[in-house]
Amino acid sequence: MNDLFLSHKTIRKYNEQKIDKITLDKILNAGIRASTTGNMQVYSIIVSTEKDIKQSLWECHFKQNMVLQAPVILTFCADFNRFNKWCDYRKANPGYDNFLSFYTASIDALLVAQNVALAAENEELGICYLGTTTYNANKIIEILKLPKYVVPVTTLVVGYPDENPSLTDRLPLSGVVHYEQYHDYSEKLINEIYSEKESLSQTKDLIAQNQTENLAQIFTQKRYTKKDNVLFSKAFLKVIEEQGFMNNAL
Amino acid sequence: MNDLFLSHKTIRKYNEQKIDKITLDKILNAGIRASTTGNMQVYSIIVSTEKDIKQSLWECHFKQNMVLQAPVILTFCADFNRFNKWCDYRKANPGYDNFLSFYTASIDALLVAQNVALAAENEELGICYLGTTTYNANKIIEILKLPKYVVPVTTLVVGYPDENPSLTDRLPLSGVVHYEQYHDYSEKLINEIYSEKESLSQTKDLIAQNQTENLAQIFTQKRYTKKDNVLFSKAFLKVIEEQGFMNNAL
Repeated sequence: MNDLFLSHKTIRKYNEQKIDKITLDKILNAGIRASTTGNMQVYSIIVSTEKDIKQSLWECHFKQNMVLQAPVILTFCADFNRFNKWCDYRKANPGYDNFLSFYTASIDALLVAQNVALAAENEELGICYLGTTTYNANKIIEILKLPKYVVPVTTLVVGYPDENPSLTDRLPLSGVVHYEQYHDYSEKLINEIYSEKESLSQTKDLIAQNQTENLAQIFTQKRYTKKDNVLFSKAFLKVIEEQGFMNNAL
Repeated sequence: MNDLFLSHKTIRKYNEQKIDKITLDKILNAGIRASTTGNMQVYSIIVSTEKDIKQSLWECHFKQNMVLQAPVILTFCADFNRFNKWCDYRKANPGYDNFLSFYTASIDALLVAQNVALAAENEELGICYLGTTTYNANKIIEILKLPKYVVPVTTLVVGYPDENPSLTDRLPLSGVVHYEQYHDYSEKLINEIYSEKESLSQTKDLIAQNQTENLAQIFTQKRYTKKDNVLFSKAFLKVIEEQGFMNNAL
């Protein structure tokens, strides 16, 4: 079991094998056992398998081929719609149209997603998280017909792997764990923590391909630029507001 | 392994047994294998074991006894400080002082947290998530000396269980999963989905104790009130801004 945690690899190529209903239900059932705030379960999971819907989602996810290739796309949503409706039908007055409630529901959805990811890997399935979910949340809301109080927060591509990549590097444990209180990072410590990553042959290849001086510049200039981040920040905040989660007043 | 997912129980009483370093490192190492955005690992984990720090954290977490009882408190933080410092030392210009970056780092931290939770349970440890982390993030920042670009997003209490509660209920899978697109909830469907939860004997006891008409009113009137949510929304948004994540302009 410990191997399951240590052997996670992101899969970007999938074969044509479908996922049978028993296996799909098994991984979804593993998902819903995750802890949620006050056991409110303020999330929803949208299972997409149809060609047309996957084609539309593919556009939102920067046209990454695996979205078309993999048999199942799972969109995890922060969802207070169901809970609010329950309250309404029970003459309870829900006060969940605010940012804290959105963030609480996001936590619920993300813990469920990680349970599903591990349970899928335990069934020999491969997974890939799509960070593009928040970038194009407005389009995903249209495609999946998400009502008010529902916001997509992450997506899992799920299917049987058609590749077997090697494990990706991680910073050393001491680089991300702090004992008792936060110890800030000196230049010396940064150099130590990042030395393995920076000395990988793949890193050198990436730098040559991208024509930057170093790996950090690939992130800031190519992959996650300030311009894109600002654009997506505005778009995502607008979505949170439009979906009903920014009424932070009594 | 599948049993691990299905047998999760939140533990609120812990015995005096410490967690040895090998076991702690094992569950933290399981954590850092989780997927993160672009493998940036923009999170940090703060391990608190000292009495004084736990006492201060206990105050933030509504004085829940388990925070003092359990040997280890893990605070998971969205952290762009380390990544920004790396960029600075590499003459790369980080553009991560915006809301999208905060949310991205939150996702990273939460997926890591759930890996740690499951790995802990796999070692016969018990866990409890503390939603109070976002409510009192400003105080936690002071206690744990979190610098700019670091925000605590969730906390795990970890220790050896001194209770063996029964599994808590969940809504039926069909109540939280949607196929292809979102199906909204009719009153009939809400009644069906919530019928098991509402008919539990514990639910009836809770309603009697709280002197409300039904379970939904316990949530809206006692546990998660609009007044508290608005207060915590404002406080948490202020923290996000103060920690440097609300510069959503070019």
